[in-house]
Amino acid sequence: MDNFSHLNKEELLALKSELEASYEEKKALNLQLDMSRGKPSGTQLNVSLDLLNVLTADSDLTASNGMDCRNYGVLDGIPEAKQLMADMMGTTPDHIIIFGNASLNIMFDSISRSYTHGVLGSTPWCKLDNVKFLCPVPGYDRHFAITERFGIEMINIPMTEDGPDMDMVEELVSKDDAIKGIWCVPKYSNPQGICYSDETVRRFANLKPAAEDFRIYWDNAYVIHHLYEDNQVEILDIISECEKAGNPDMVYEFASTSKISFPGSGISAIATSAANLADVKKQMTVQTIGHDKLNQLRHVKYFKNIDGLKAHMMKHAAEMRPKFEAALEVLDRELAGTGIGSWNKPLGGYFISFEAMEGCAKKIVEKCKEAGVVLTNAGATYPYGKDPKDSNIRIAPSFPTPEEMAQATDLFVLCVKLVSVEKLLADK
Amino acid sequence: MDNFSHLNKEELLALKSELEASYEEKKALNLQLDMSRGKPSGTQLNVSLDLLNVLTADSDLTASNGMDCRNYGVLDGIPEAKQLMADMMGTTPDHIIIFGNASLNIMFDSISRSYTHGVLGSTPWCKLDNVKFLCPVPGYDRHFAITERFGIEMINIPMTEDGPDMDMVEELVSKDDAIKGIWCVPKYSNPQGICYSDETVRRFANLKPAAEDFRIYWDNAYVIHHLYEDNQVEILDIISECEKAGNPDMVYEFASTSKISFPGSGISAIATSAANLADVKKQMTVQTIGHDKLNQLRHVKYFKNIDGLKAHMMKHAAEMRPKFEAALEVLDRELAGTGIGSWNKPLGGYFISFEAMEGCAKKIVEKCKEAGVVLTNAGATYPYGKDPKDSNIRIAPSFPTPEEMAQATDLFVLCVKLVSVEKLLADK
Repeated sequence: MDNFSHLNKEELLALKSELEASYEEKKALNLQLDMSRGKPSGTQLNVSLDLLNVLTADSDLTASNGMDCRNYGVLDGIPEAKQLMADMMGTTPDHIIIFGNASLNIMFDSISRSYTHGVLGSTPWCKLDNVKFLCPVPGYDRHFAITERFGIEMINIPMTEDGPDMDMVEELVSKDDAIKGIWCVPKYSNPQGICYSDETVRRFANLKPAAEDFRIYWDNAYVIHHLYEDNQVEILDIISECEKAGNPDMVYEFASTSKISFPGSGISAIATSAANLADVKKQMTVQTIGHDKLNQLRHVKYFKNIDGLKAHMMKHAAEMRPKFEAALEVLDRELAGTGIGSWNKPLGGYFISFEAMEGCAKKIVEKCKEAGVVLTNAGATYPYGKDPKDSNIRIAPSFPTPEEMAQATDLFVLCVKLVSVEKLLADK
Repeated sequence: MDNFSHLNKEELLALKSELEASYEEKKALNLQLDMSRGKPSGTQLNVSLDLLNVLTADSDLTASNGMDCRNYGVLDGIPEAKQLMADMMGTTPDHIIIFGNASLNIMFDSISRSYTHGVLGSTPWCKLDNVKFLCPVPGYDRHFAITERFGIEMINIPMTEDGPDMDMVEELVSKDDAIKGIWCVPKYSNPQGICYSDETVRRFANLKPAAEDFRIYWDNAYVIHHLYEDNQVEILDIISECEKAGNPDMVYEFASTSKISFPGSGISAIATSAANLADVKKQMTVQTIGHDKLNQLRHVKYFKNIDGLKAHMMKHAAEMRPKFEAALEVLDRELAGTGIGSWNKPLGGYFISFEAMEGCAKKIVEKCKEAGVVLTNAGATYPYGKDPKDSNIRIAPSFPTPEEMAQATDLFVLCVKLVSVEKLLADK
């Protein structure tokens, strides 16, 4: 397709009225499609249904350490659940605490605990005038919501193909002791699907932060969420890299089975150093008597081991892949060469990230909504909901069917074109 | 039995050597019994086993509001779970948020949230020099651990047969705006089994606290945990009493199914006013995507309604009653009339509270431990683990069998006698 920037005013005006006519037609279809959140579809959830059959009244409900999983006890998780989550996260069970149904909750608690009690004996953040966080952008809105809730100043860090801009991270972290952390989704990042390169991981592990209570918040949300069997990315284990670098306490890693078993009914874990684990447990022992061990046991009995987990993820991939491919096919067909947008082709994760022309994202999302296709709010991928260029749009293909995804993307590209033409005309 | 205080020195010495001989005999039995925590026994847990059979891959997993319980969504609980918990707590579903597996966690979060963000817009407690809590004593160690964790000064409030000393509560609360809350277990209290009288509940509802962010932390942990079918206590609903008194926002009520279904694998709830619910949700929406809806559905399908819950509790009562009665029989037989101890005869809950002579509790617990019977640490029922009279001992009959309970109480009364005789001799 022609590059839109080569069109003259008359051509743009003609294209505009053509697009407007198509838009009115699409609008008349009264679509009701949701590409807004990384939420599995009903048929995708069916692949985990047998999880509900593994624990019955006749099951052996004893953990490998002899604990009756029906009763109180075991603050940090049953051994076999620690093993499973450790294998998934690429670390060892001695680094693990199992939590409840959501890793988001562990992240919130980690920030809240640092705010009220500090980190390994440091000054609680609530006693400091200034606390800052680095936020690679575009990123995950729920991360930003946590730091915003605690009044933590967020600093945007641009993403590159290899992960966050590490020159900038190293510079800021080493100079400013008010910087206490950085949000990372190191594998199949939300929303760009970027996987941190080995060099990026090593540079993270070798940071020399000015703040002793600086931590890397390593949200390994998509650690085994590949889209392809034969094209899977692996990244370095941040925990052992930090150990090698003499920074064993510098990272908290998070993961869950939310998008493996059932969202909201899975298990989650933190992986970190012995000193950090002790710090976390000091609070946990006051906060809870322990998390749901029956659900831990249910997950272990169902998945059995890391091989079981990996095989299960290929069933999810089979559901997800056609949806991603449907969207990407339309994007390629309709927008390649137009110069009015770029996007990633992820190998895993839950999102496609679209970069529109500057100042167009909000209008595109609005236009889509008007015609019945809901996207994540423009700006949501940036701290404070403010995308400085108003250009990033997150597309979540998981919920609609492949056919609906094609339909929704059809509308989306139409809106991209229309808004872009309007912008180009205004600039003439 | 004779009142020990009437014995002269010679009689006491003779008794002492008799008791010491018995103690050595008991010690030789190498008992290994645990009366330390309110933990159900394995056979008691069996009464809930069928809970594990109600959700299978073939079940309808849709909530009454149409939500797929396997997926993300529903921050505050599925409607039928709200209804069940509301009926149990004696309130209405519009007052309820369903949480995860433990009400302790809701209490912790409530304190933590008040500390970091205040209460309905009040100054966050972390910005105040002084925050105090009233603690009816003896009480629940895990309550005190939460307030201690946040550096909150705890003030002991004596318990009466009708609940906390309300003269003292009214006086303190109305004068001191640093007092932000009070821990209450209003029904079958931990450890005394006391049920707050109607007058006590009404006086609570009519408090005129100096602090606008003062809240009653109403831990209704044993709300339907009766020991008898024909002798059940009901207390007034604090939520509606507070509404009537024009103090709708003054109470947070907590409950869970931990000791109804499975400890650690149940569901929990907070009940409070609309304004407080909104305040809680403002944080929850950042903290989590929602709690385990499949477990909510599992509980609703299993218990069906409040009648199902109540019938189920009678199965628990049938397990618990013989244990309580075994302990009380020994206490009555061996200590009635001796003047060296008093205890309650609870109609519900999980504990028997024993008052030894002043300065004897620690020694009794130690002596029991030496002979193989573990009790809750003396002092644990008081803030900071400090029982000013060193006299309260909490007995938890739930875990041992009735026979073991009789055996353990046999040893217990022997230790009470021995330590009391030693004290009486020392005072001569």
